[in-house]
Amino acid sequence: MSATFRPFEVHDVRFPTSRTLDGSDAMNRDPDYSAAYVVVRTSAGDAGYGFVFTIGRGNEVAVSALRGVERLVVGLDADEVFSDMGGFGRLLTHDSQLRWLGPEKGVVHMAIGAVVNAVWDLLARRRGLPLWKLLAGLSPRELAGLVDFRHISDVLSYDEAVDILTRASAGSDERERRLLAEGYPAYSTSAGWLGYPDDKVLALARGAVGAGFDHLKLKVGAGPEADERRLKLVRDLVGPGVHLSVDANQAWEVAEAIENVRHLAGAGLLWVEEPTSPDDIAGHLAIAKAVAPVRVASGEHVANRVVFKQMLSSGAIGVCQIDACRVAGVNENIAVLLLAAKFGVPVCPHAGGVGLCELVQHLSMFDYLAVSASVEGRWAEYVDHLHEHFVVPVRLERGRYRAPVEPGFGSELRASSVADYSFPGGRAWSELASAG
Amino acid sequence: MSATFRPFEVHDVRFPTSRTLDGSDAMNRDPDYSAAYVVVRTSAGDAGYGFVFTIGRGNEVAVSALRGVERLVVGLDADEVFSDMGGFGRLLTHDSQLRWLGPEKGVVHMAIGAVVNAVWDLLARRRGLPLWKLLAGLSPRELAGLVDFRHISDVLSYDEAVDILTRASAGSDERERRLLAEGYPAYSTSAGWLGYPDDKVLALARGAVGAGFDHLKLKVGAGPEADERRLKLVRDLVGPGVHLSVDANQAWEVAEAIENVRHLAGAGLLWVEEPTSPDDIAGHLAIAKAVAPVRVASGEHVANRVVFKQMLSSGAIGVCQIDACRVAGVNENIAVLLLAAKFGVPVCPHAGGVGLCELVQHLSMFDYLAVSASVEGRWAEYVDHLHEHFVVPVRLERGRYRAPVEPGFGSELRASSVADYSFPGGRAWSELASAG
Repeated sequence: MSATFRPFEVHDVRFPTSRTLDGSDAMNRDPDYSAAYVVVRTSAGDAGYGFVFTIGRGNEVAVSALRGVERLVVGLDADEVFSDMGGFGRLLTHDSQLRWLGPEKGVVHMAIGAVVNAVWDLLARRRGLPLWKLLAGLSPRELAGLVDFRHISDVLSYDEAVDILTRASAGSDERERRLLAEGYPAYSTSAGWLGYPDDKVLALARGAVGAGFDHLKLKVGAGPEADERRLKLVRDLVGPGVHLSVDANQAWEVAEAIENVRHLAGAGLLWVEEPTSPDDIAGHLAIAKAVAPVRVASGEHVANRVVFKQMLSSGAIGVCQIDACRVAGVNENIAVLLLAAKFGVPVCPHAGGVGLCELVQHLSMFDYLAVSASVEGRWAEYVDHLHEHFVVPVRLERGRYRAPVEPGFGSELRASSVADYSFPGGRAWSELASAG
Repeated sequence: MSATFRPFEVHDVRFPTSRTLDGSDAMNRDPDYSAAYVVVRTSAGDAGYGFVFTIGRGNEVAVSALRGVERLVVGLDADEVFSDMGGFGRLLTHDSQLRWLGPEKGVVHMAIGAVVNAVWDLLARRRGLPLWKLLAGLSPRELAGLVDFRHISDVLSYDEAVDILTRASAGSDERERRLLAEGYPAYSTSAGWLGYPDDKVLALARGAVGAGFDHLKLKVGAGPEADERRLKLVRDLVGPGVHLSVDANQAWEVAEAIENVRHLAGAGLLWVEEPTSPDDIAGHLAIAKAVAPVRVASGEHVANRVVFKQMLSSGAIGVCQIDACRVAGVNENIAVLLLAAKFGVPVCPHAGGVGLCELVQHLSMFDYLAVSASVEGRWAEYVDHLHEHFVVPVRLERGRYRAPVEPGFGSELRASSVADYSFPGGRAWSELASAG
């Protein structure tokens, strides 16, 4: 008898990060980094892990959405799911009743992403491979079969996806050797949170460059003068050889973004990230034209492949920032990697939060081996917190992600962390409550 | 002592409409029309009613989201909220932690809409006015103050909104007299659900025209031949004097939409609704250019004012279909009405579902009195089901909505309906369960 999917185990896990202003930016001043965490098991006893990343309030809504998705999964034959992971993803995103709540956006879509990711984690563990290697070992047709071409076929067809993947397969063995030897480039955001004082920013920037990072990102949106002053302080510290980018976290109007970026550009900027609403394709395009050669980056809040299609095909973004937990999981991110490859836009994933670094490194490494076949102009974001809660935390050396060799997607939280940070009953929260 | 907001009363209400295929279309084949229903009370004892409309599974996620919004509202001073309803809306949509779950889209945004609508209902009851009249009595500056101009200011400023509203105020008394005498134009979708057999469609279409409707809408997406056949049957029945529109409910790719609409256009089409993904502004624009003079209509799934801004300013839609329960309530719909007025696009609200007709009639009547100042090319959708569950159901005469005179927004469900259709414990669901 073959294995079937069992009821989910779901946890509301929250870290009290607002106490230290880790993660503070122009729009998110006091995040409590959180995960609506799901354990997907089969009746054969194997397990996979996934989560929706949130920043506090509303994590319980994501928990409820995971329960909503659970009803579509429990009882499915595990081998049938593994043999058609693309069909499994479409089963979830095409469910008409759940789809009404998006469509393909917001909490329900994020919960579907967590479940799809958890099943990929489970499958990679079963195959004894890290996810990047499992994916890179699939054929172009198998990979294209993971993509939902609905509503993107005007720009990317199945055959075109197969062509892109086939072209990229040349030289992949050599790239894998280089990846294992050298790692994947990273940039650091740890220095530049908006709520940090100058001396802390400078000390952290010095530390990051010393640790081998060649690209740092600072948060902006504190006001043009404050932003410029801080950016110049950092530029003076790191010199001209280090790339600097800034992140406005959607704080600006279109005209304001253009004015502010022109003002900041004197300090030498690689990209400006989320200058305005992530829904505003036309706004991003206007900004991109006005601030070139500074690139416009976006994606961590882009809801789905349909919005990415427009962002990429129009030239609205020059840097594509996929997020492991915003869209419908690995499958939809492969669609976005293919769209980015078609338009020659480098993918530099968003990370940080809870476990986003652990996840996106796999997607970047897969992109390098099988889709874009390049690390040119590409860095995966790195933020230095909360890694200690993961069973397989990321490893960085000389400003680069080491390729993980452990089976799975890196998405498993330590059991003790799940217990301690469960909200509101876990030890960490009880202690905060009693400390008043 | 002034009144404050009390904890919400929240209900998971579902109607087993999938049993009869009411509401069936190309993407939503078996909806159970549902409402995550919220009662907002003040300590002074008055109450307002709102809801998230869903089509079944996931209604409990919307219930959870209402609880998430509740925490931001309970304890607020009611008079302060009433004196700055724009600020109240922004308090909810700008909450950084909840915003992460959209931003401004999906379940959390819909729950905010339900709460904003409930407070408007409460305020209108307190003032003893139907909502359309309360809104139409506000000054241009008061109305513009309700709008969140964030991320739309490149296309619509506060001053421009005031100008539009000031121009529209001329003649509003005369328009109100006409509205009260003649009602607001409606079109009927009751005849054309995809799951209905031909004879039922034809009988219902004959009934609708006999009842005074001059505009009917049919669902398409069953396949080009089946769609064309049914459309011709209806055209032959109603003759050339009745407008016909079709609704694809997002079923098509861009090229497919263009081909299918050209094929159907011979039967005489006013608009094609939701030809493809509601996120695809570029796709709608391509379709609009290709199928003119047939208009492209969309909006019931458009997530927020930022997407509407692009749809309207680019010419992607020629008919703007606001939905009372998709965006952040009355406030954001006023933003959309203003954007539509700026670009001269008629607003023809989406309705049907649970109570959407009851709500949108107020917004259309307000649009006529205070924003577009016209009913030319405008109809509010009418679907003939579930009205009996509302305390103040819509009243139609000769194919037009009668202006409601009762205080409030029309959003209150009968207490017996809430009890009977509560899921899963209500009488209706217990009976279905025991009937097997």
